[in-house]
Amino acid sequence: MGHDDLAESLHSLGALKFGDFELSGGGRSPYYVDMRAVPSSPVAFRRAVGALLGTIEASVGLDSVGTIASVPTGGLVFASALALESAKPLAYVRASPKGHGTSRAVEGSVSAGDRVLLIDDVATTGGSLLRAAAALRAAGARVDCAVVLVDRLEGAAAALRAEGIGLHSVSTILDLATALRSRGRIGEDVMREIRARTGQS
Amino acid sequence: MGHDDLAESLHSLGALKFGDFELSGGGRSPYYVDMRAVPSSPVAFRRAVGALLGTIEASVGLDSVGTIASVPTGGLVFASALALESAKPLAYVRASPKGHGTSRAVEGSVSAGDRVLLIDDVATTGGSLLRAAAALRAAGARVDCAVVLVDRLEGAAAALRAEGIGLHSVSTILDLATALRSRGRIGEDVMREIRARTGQS
Repeated sequence: MGHDDLAESLHSLGALKFGDFELSGGGRSPYYVDMRAVPSSPVAFRRAVGALLGTIEASVGLDSVGTIASVPTGGLVFASALALESAKPLAYVRASPKGHGTSRAVEGSVSAGDRVLLIDDVATTGGSLLRAAAALRAAGARVDCAVVLVDRLEGAAAALRAEGIGLHSVSTILDLATALRSRGRIGEDVMREIRARTGQS
Repeated sequence: MGHDDLAESLHSLGALKFGDFELSGGGRSPYYVDMRAVPSSPVAFRRAVGALLGTIEASVGLDSVGTIASVPTGGLVFASALALESAKPLAYVRASPKGHGTSRAVEGSVSAGDRVLLIDDVATTGGSLLRAAAALRAAGARVDCAVVLVDRLEGAAAALRAEGIGLHSVSTILDLATALRSRGRIGEDVMREIRARTGQS
């Protein structure tokens, strides 16, 4: 899937909005991206899963991946569908390990030396990807790559690189905004704000 | 998939164990079932998703389902894969609505009058299915059926029926134990305990 199709698809679903948004971590953003609306559209969901698979094949190589691991919590829907499509084992990292019963940070089996690919919907600063990588490494996994649907370009790639993890994305927010700008869906003022925010101005 | 294949598959993965287990809600059980290990096996995962689809087609009818809704949190992995396979929209009910941002109990779009099918991995007393049904109904959905992989036969069917929801399962714990007993995987003492627990003795 090209950036144009993904951008149009996210925009029409309301998964990608432009305006003035308050971020959960404080601060404001000229856009809002929330992939939780995507699985409500079977076409968009299948496209997104196909795009993840395409990026994995092009950037990582599917055969070299032992296990797909979902980062909590947004990535789980996409990682589950991707695991079914690719016939790869799925593990997932809990948002917070359960206090009771068979308490573990990682659900599903990860063997020592197993090459585990991190999957998430959106990368921002990389915090949740790094926490998931640490939990998987503690379980013996080899973690050297992550694939996300949208990279917001707010530091995740550098933070992951510092931990020996390559970040690959289907699209960056700049790709998506550029595609929507070229179709006249957003104005030049919004483009400028996004370029400034992502350090591209 | 027959009960034999599902039973063997769950038993060999360690998703179904027999012994003496403490339950998270207090009390003890002669068996333990935890479907979170299933997606670690691509074959078992695909079988489980196929079995859910088969039960939906036989008991509910796929065409009459508007949206698939996952019950938190165990069902989400299966519901996501099922949504991809069946090309049905996926909604999911949050374990606890987020305090921040676009706070909602239901993620994904559910329209008024939309027939929503609840999906979960395991049914015990039906508490989480009922909470999910209430959230979906509050969003305008029509909820009259639920499909789970394993029914532990501990009251879920009656509790759901009282709310106008039919519970369908791929297997009950009695089906699974009977299949394993017939292959000599478990002894008659375990069968007796399970029959007693499920009110079948």
